[in-house]
Amino acid sequence: MSKLIYRRRQSARHRPHSGEPTYEALTPEELQLAARNHAMPLEALREDITPPGLHYILTHFDIPHVDPGAWHLRIGGAVERALELSLAALKKDPAISLPVTLECAGNGRSLLKPRPLSQPWTLEAVGTALWTGVPLAYVLAQAGVEPEAVEVVFTGLDEGIQAGIRHQYARSLPIAEAMRGDVVLAYKMNGSELPPQHGYPLRLVVPGWYGMTSVKWLQSIQVVTRPFHGFQQEVAYRYQHNADDAGTPVSRIRVRSLMIPPGIPDFYTRRRVLPRGPVTLRGRAWSGEGAVTGVNVGIDGKWIPAQLDTPAGAFAWRGWSVPWVADAGEHELICRATDATGAIQPLEQHWNYQGMGNNVVQRVKVTVE
Amino acid sequence: MSKLIYRRRQSARHRPHSGEPTYEALTPEELQLAARNHAMPLEALREDITPPGLHYILTHFDIPHVDPGAWHLRIGGAVERALELSLAALKKDPAISLPVTLECAGNGRSLLKPRPLSQPWTLEAVGTALWTGVPLAYVLAQAGVEPEAVEVVFTGLDEGIQAGIRHQYARSLPIAEAMRGDVVLAYKMNGSELPPQHGYPLRLVVPGWYGMTSVKWLQSIQVVTRPFHGFQQEVAYRYQHNADDAGTPVSRIRVRSLMIPPGIPDFYTRRRVLPRGPVTLRGRAWSGEGAVTGVNVGIDGKWIPAQLDTPAGAFAWRGWSVPWVADAGEHELICRATDATGAIQPLEQHWNYQGMGNNVVQRVKVTVE
Repeated sequence: MSKLIYRRRQSARHRPHSGEPTYEALTPEELQLAARNHAMPLEALREDITPPGLHYILTHFDIPHVDPGAWHLRIGGAVERALELSLAALKKDPAISLPVTLECAGNGRSLLKPRPLSQPWTLEAVGTALWTGVPLAYVLAQAGVEPEAVEVVFTGLDEGIQAGIRHQYARSLPIAEAMRGDVVLAYKMNGSELPPQHGYPLRLVVPGWYGMTSVKWLQSIQVVTRPFHGFQQEVAYRYQHNADDAGTPVSRIRVRSLMIPPGIPDFYTRRRVLPRGPVTLRGRAWSGEGAVTGVNVGIDGKWIPAQLDTPAGAFAWRGWSVPWVADAGEHELICRATDATGAIQPLEQHWNYQGMGNNVVQRVKVTVE
Repeated sequence: MSKLIYRRRQSARHRPHSGEPTYEALTPEELQLAARNHAMPLEALREDITPPGLHYILTHFDIPHVDPGAWHLRIGGAVERALELSLAALKKDPAISLPVTLECAGNGRSLLKPRPLSQPWTLEAVGTALWTGVPLAYVLAQAGVEPEAVEVVFTGLDEGIQAGIRHQYARSLPIAEAMRGDVVLAYKMNGSELPPQHGYPLRLVVPGWYGMTSVKWLQSIQVVTRPFHGFQQEVAYRYQHNADDAGTPVSRIRVRSLMIPPGIPDFYTRRRVLPRGPVTLRGRAWSGEGAVTGVNVGIDGKWIPAQLDTPAGAFAWRGWSVPWVADAGEHELICRATDATGAIQPLEQHWNYQGMGNNVVQRVKVTVE
């Protein structure tokens, strides 16, 4: 099956998306996706921890219905002892809690020209939650990973069809990433049991990686001795120039910052209006590749370094602020973050065929009265 | 101010929406709204009570930030005793809890041809929550309503601009509706404190009325002796033929039913695929005008009466089900509800200028393999 998928992709008969990227207006299919899934309203950037219902959600297929009493997590493959764990058993294991910023790999897709046809995110497919659960490494140690293991495959209960291929959602992680101490099998979000849409009863959370890696509604964990070639690994979630390009896999979150739009909005255009005088511009910045080291705020083309808050965690967003004395007129505000690897947000789009990892700067137009 | 607004509407200089209804594809402004607000994924129809994050949300402006310690509810106008109540004081009053189905008045708007330019809902802007709080009538009785009162005006903390008019979101209710025993000042949703996006710390819930009536982030309640003419009452939320038509106010929820799409989805098209054989089609039906008395399910044009579950409350949706033996091929499934007033869902759109109350039947296309 995996060979078949790979061959088909190479012949461009299996694109991840439905049709070529377009300059045309939004399709009814994209609108259906936008109605189901949702981003985080930008004013929620003021919260250190995003409340459920404001955190972004992308559900590929349907949210599965799970009976928590009947549910078991199966752990198998290249392990010494295959395990089948109930939710009650997992909750008896030592637990960790950590704040993690998750972002959809397709965030910013709808801003690309031409626009790949998939979930049409604008800028806000992000959120930071406090995830609580068992370290994956602890469970893998219980099972005993065989020395020839190269990856761990996570399969969710959600099933559907994409690009003509029927499958359950599944992704893999290299064994070294899977053994990191901060990769968690989470059964709580912000101190409460997982909401259905966030993977109830158990999900993976991989700090630093784009959200597609943090498989929801976990059914099984399989340790494998050869790289996994499932659809969501091999066809979807790749940086490609075009349909015939094998591309490179999407993995860690690229550096990005967002701003709470100041003032009040117009209902339809979301254009902002604020009074003249002093105002503090605030937002958050994050990167999965290294710590955020700076945010610069551009006001009508002049760059001002923002003050950074103390980080809440290695992979949680970092608050920033800049004072501004707003004078009457039209202004454009931009925020632009850099991280410890030297990566910086691009001012213009870095286009790719699937619309992945578009971390272009946010531009907020305001009218000061 | 109210007279000014009214005169402007009559001259069609203040349309509620931005531009005339269109046959063109979705605008970037509509997409921005679709990214902020969200509907209820249809598979969540299986839940009697919709979990937070799945219940639909429409936020006109921004979600306000409220300090619950500093917040007070002001009750004034044509009352014997003006009141200023803290959240703690409200929580000491006798509380009621009731399940209520709320639906956005603009649900179904994006399906209209031509399409009014506003939040582009498809079919799923609905949800049912268990709301807990103080009966509004109890608080009004404490204040003592003057005999000349005609309406009660509810003002939220959310502020913005719509059609050029800056205002805080506000709506009124006729005094008789406000004094109903089941109209609640809610501080809990599904047993927990209100999420920010649902009106924290206090919101109005008016069972049976479209969602615009259930004002969130309540700041004040004013009893008035003349009808309220605010923007959201006088200009928005009206059934109009065109911009020059004064129209009639939107009030109670029209009868509607929705179905859980059977089988599994295609990611992009949401087209359903299911295996041949027996399957139970399930959904929910509701009406704010009278009890749901029947649901008929159309399968390839043949109508079958659904079995109705016991209602959970006077204004909570009612479950329904129909057994079906699916044979291979393409099918169209429709559900159509009727209520105690004799109202029945239309098979084709009943168009209006603002795209309000479009309760046209849902049509689900499925492929049986």
